[in-house]
Amino acid sequence: MNFPTWMAGVQQRTEAALETTLPSSELAPGRLHDAMRYSVLGGGKRVRPLLCHAAGAVFGADSSVLDVPSVAVELIHAYSLVHDDLPCMDDDVLRRGKPTCHVEFDEATALLVGDALQTQAFNALSKHLPGIAPARQLDMLNLLATASGSRGMAGGQAIDLAAVGQQLTVGELEFMHIHKTGALIRAAVLLGAHCGEALPEAMEHLGRYANRIGLLFQVVDDILDAEASTATLGKTAGKDAAANKPTYVSILGAREAKAMSAKLRQDAHDALEPFGESALRLHELADFIVARTF
Amino acid sequence: MNFPTWMAGVQQRTEAALETTLPSSELAPGRLHDAMRYSVLGGGKRVRPLLCHAAGAVFGADSSVLDVPSVAVELIHAYSLVHDDLPCMDDDVLRRGKPTCHVEFDEATALLVGDALQTQAFNALSKHLPGIAPARQLDMLNLLATASGSRGMAGGQAIDLAAVGQQLTVGELEFMHIHKTGALIRAAVLLGAHCGEALPEAMEHLGRYANRIGLLFQVVDDILDAEASTATLGKTAGKDAAANKPTYVSILGAREAKAMSAKLRQDAHDALEPFGESALRLHELADFIVARTF
Repeated sequence: MNFPTWMAGVQQRTEAALETTLPSSELAPGRLHDAMRYSVLGGGKRVRPLLCHAAGAVFGADSSVLDVPSVAVELIHAYSLVHDDLPCMDDDVLRRGKPTCHVEFDEATALLVGDALQTQAFNALSKHLPGIAPARQLDMLNLLATASGSRGMAGGQAIDLAAVGQQLTVGELEFMHIHKTGALIRAAVLLGAHCGEALPEAMEHLGRYANRIGLLFQVVDDILDAEASTATLGKTAGKDAAANKPTYVSILGAREAKAMSAKLRQDAHDALEPFGESALRLHELADFIVARTF
Repeated sequence: MNFPTWMAGVQQRTEAALETTLPSSELAPGRLHDAMRYSVLGGGKRVRPLLCHAAGAVFGADSSVLDVPSVAVELIHAYSLVHDDLPCMDDDVLRRGKPTCHVEFDEATALLVGDALQTQAFNALSKHLPGIAPARQLDMLNLLATASGSRGMAGGQAIDLAAVGQQLTVGELEFMHIHKTGALIRAAVLLGAHCGEALPEAMEHLGRYANRIGLLFQVVDDILDAEASTATLGKTAGKDAAANKPTYVSILGAREAKAMSAKLRQDAHDALEPFGESALRLHELADFIVARTF
């Protein structure tokens, strides 16, 4: 199977799994469920589920088991986008080519949508997974919670808030992104590996890969934000510069940022060496993330 | 040990457990951790932890194990208060006698505080609990997530939003409160029982008790909101009437609401009959919740 076919397959099954996991709009409270579905379904590249499935494939994990942590991570990601777009945060009106949740519904609903999507993530991952020891599943939940909380993604958002209008060093910018984007991307990879009962040493290699991929993703995002158009992105372009936010492009310049992305890609490939052919999809994903710049 | 001494003991150990669970303000991002601690520590009656410990005591559960679900439930409760007080929701400036989180810090920080407190709850409950089978702990996590999400507490908030200015029947009001307040109170009781490895039949009796207590709590809250002063409550009094929100007092009148609370208390006591003396603290808590009106 070639990469685009594999990718389309994972995206399709993720969409189906999200569709089943999210409560129906027929269930009360219907407007909340409607807004949750609006914010999650029918959009997004599903990068985190792709990473989760690709990491699971290294250890022969079952796809239907991998769907569960994939959904959980994607729900956390979706909640963070809904809250991030709120007027008191980035105040954005466009996401994945559609009006943001608070624009389409209202602010109070968007607040509750984010809250309930986060809960839904932990709900999904706390249902007994077939073939996974409950003790390992607890570790998976703890991994997701640690990656999402004040020492992970939410903490990264707080650092991001504090950074607006500040002059950051590359080191400080990296610290912010390791939390804001990197932590959840790392969780996606490691959760996939958990489904294949990966051993600690393999986890360490994958952790290195994931750390590189997490930064790579952000560097590429900054390049895209600076260079692409709103139509291509499906979200407001150039908004980091407009918001006076430090980015890899604003600190390093576009040329240097692209060189950094090439280096990160190489490091990611190197980290996968111990896995040989079984890590094919992880290699392809590293290339895919960079290819978005061209 | 008399009830006030027992209660003070549980409140004290809950405070200590929350203190240890919440990340230190010394850790980055310091301002976020500071705001999380501000919103959780040094206030609140800790009704949910009291219920959790009282239910655990029926089955001889270990207090130090009971601290963990107690903390998890209290963190969920605290997150809901922080988000509930935001300008796009109840827009309240006073909570537990102090400025609300978004007033003391800022809106974006309060949003992230609520987000991170929710994550922290699942983080705490996903650490391996000594003496609890991991499979049971997964069930406990799923119970908490179900009680907190769109079909529980967050859903209740959404119904509450939609109810402003509406004429509700007692039945509709009850449906709202079963979600908004009742679900998490029920979770507190059942999580405590899980720590004592309670059997399904016992869970059923406790579930009945918890449902009555959940409504009782809300009826009493409505009576207090209508009759007490802001100074006594430590939060803005009379705000439901001011916000044109339906309450038991506005629908039934104060006299009828008090009769309803007496009936709910009796039902709660009756549900505990199978447990005899071992349910002493649960009996006392039912009386304590009503006594707040006098």
